[in-house]
Amino acid sequence: MKVPEELISFLKSEKKYFIATHIDPEGDALGSSLALSMALEILGKETFLYDRDPIPEFYHYLPGYERFNNSLKSFTSISDLPLILIDCNTPERAGLEGLKFKYSAVIDHHEADGIFGDIKWIVPEAAATGIMIFYLIKELRLKITQEMAINLYSAIAIDTGTFRFGNTTSEVLRIGAELVEAGASPLYISNRLYETWSKERFVLFSMALNTLEIRDSVAITFVTQEMYKKTGTRPEDTENFPSFPRIIKDVKVSVFLRELEKNSWKVSLRSKGELNVAHIASRMGGGGHKNAAGFVIKSDLRTAKETLLKLLQI
Amino acid sequence: MKVPEELISFLKSEKKYFIATHIDPEGDALGSSLALSMALEILGKETFLYDRDPIPEFYHYLPGYERFNNSLKSFTSISDLPLILIDCNTPERAGLEGLKFKYSAVIDHHEADGIFGDIKWIVPEAAATGIMIFYLIKELRLKITQEMAINLYSAIAIDTGTFRFGNTTSEVLRIGAELVEAGASPLYISNRLYETWSKERFVLFSMALNTLEIRDSVAITFVTQEMYKKTGTRPEDTENFPSFPRIIKDVKVSVFLRELEKNSWKVSLRSKGELNVAHIASRMGGGGHKNAAGFVIKSDLRTAKETLLKLLQI
Repeated sequence: MKVPEELISFLKSEKKYFIATHIDPEGDALGSSLALSMALEILGKETFLYDRDPIPEFYHYLPGYERFNNSLKSFTSISDLPLILIDCNTPERAGLEGLKFKYSAVIDHHEADGIFGDIKWIVPEAAATGIMIFYLIKELRLKITQEMAINLYSAIAIDTGTFRFGNTTSEVLRIGAELVEAGASPLYISNRLYETWSKERFVLFSMALNTLEIRDSVAITFVTQEMYKKTGTRPEDTENFPSFPRIIKDVKVSVFLRELEKNSWKVSLRSKGELNVAHIASRMGGGGHKNAAGFVIKSDLRTAKETLLKLLQI
Repeated sequence: MKVPEELISFLKSEKKYFIATHIDPEGDALGSSLALSMALEILGKETFLYDRDPIPEFYHYLPGYERFNNSLKSFTSISDLPLILIDCNTPERAGLEGLKFKYSAVIDHHEADGIFGDIKWIVPEAAATGIMIFYLIKELRLKITQEMAINLYSAIAIDTGTFRFGNTTSEVLRIGAELVEAGASPLYISNRLYETWSKERFVLFSMALNTLEIRDSVAITFVTQEMYKKTGTRPEDTENFPSFPRIIKDVKVSVFLRELEKNSWKVSLRSKGELNVAHIASRMGGGGHKNAAGFVIKSDLRTAKETLLKLLQI
């Protein structure tokens, strides 16, 4: 993977950088930002990390996670700083709309929605932004430290389902190997990513599975406000719930509904293989990727289900 | 990894080989045996594959799975054949007790229980027997075909939790990369291994989760004969059920009980990190690995639970 020369020059030219990533951050956003921040510090730069939303607790194992600011209040002259946008490619996606920066670089593996960025390094074929940061750090001729390795391995793990998704190439596995050699522990990282559910979350999951209904290769499960109350859980506890019913052989799409308020549901679609759910989501005013997309639907549960089944006639 | 020279000579010296693996076969047993059989055929040898038990349906994607015989009846002069024992190291474990063979070689990554085998190649540090077969095929100077690659990748995937367990080293990831280059698809294999549940199995899983009880960092779940009947499922549908409750942060051991008949339960223990459950299992007349072991307990459910909690006081 070729790192643009102008990006390398830019990263060498300034003293301070404002690194921002997308709202609702996940492992690739966080790990990539942190590893880049660490690399720039070794080059003698000062970095400011920003995410509009708090870092979910189970990511607190990422070395340096406390570097993230969730507020812009402490920045008096943000317009004097150059921006590096990580794992997203519009200021809106990072909650930075309307702000001016001295200069801007975008490093992302999502299809670009807009034209933002003085430098745009966008590689949709990259399995994770973490892969791009890995090459960038090498191009800067820096050694990958253990802290960087844990961040980058976590970034790649999240975006490839720890080497299970279609974006897992031999290159991804080799980079994984190199990061293990640099000090990332696959066991430790997998435990932190996948074995940190609260008991309450487990009970909520069990309740959600009990709602399963399968019609025409579509699996539907849901979680209500009542269920949160009963178990003492919160909406973020439903992370990964939408994907689970794909485990069933004949299921082509898993639909997960999460009650936002009376007659309002956040719908998550998770499809297998070639079935593109991003189209359906965008028709409904939402968005996403080919196999994972979402939107909001305003109706009672029964009507919502019927609408979804019509939309998904496959 | 050094392959013993006498093993290489042995594999070149005979015309026919009887390859057997352990009862209740899983991915490492099957994939390793199949890849070896394919390699020997390229060398012009005839191979006979044997497993006492039928190959679980979701492994029917393994290229060549139909090579396996589940009966010894068709072998008239088995004592004239040399044996290669794969992923186990005693004839008993392969359901071959009392039989005589011309010669025998053992290829396994489990700690050896006995002294069986004219040639013993036993490497407990190997993450999977598939890793050993990978090196063996290379030592035989053969190209890894796509069919071998799918078998070996599956073998390694099963024994490392697709690169999540503590046995995932950089070497394992690099071998994974090489197998992908030889034609194994991580997405296809993960789908076949993890997304082929029947709806009935899913409902049984949901029922099992509903039985969760947590006491002193021990998670207990169970499945009864009654549940099989209600859902139309069978004991083999509970594969992976024992591991799931480890997802809960404060759980140190997951105990799963599966009713064999009235007042008789198959107990599976799955621990996290350093907690060794093999000792406990062997005290109860069973066996296994550090983090995964099992045995049979004869009592009613309530007494079984109390006994287990006492055994697991941690």
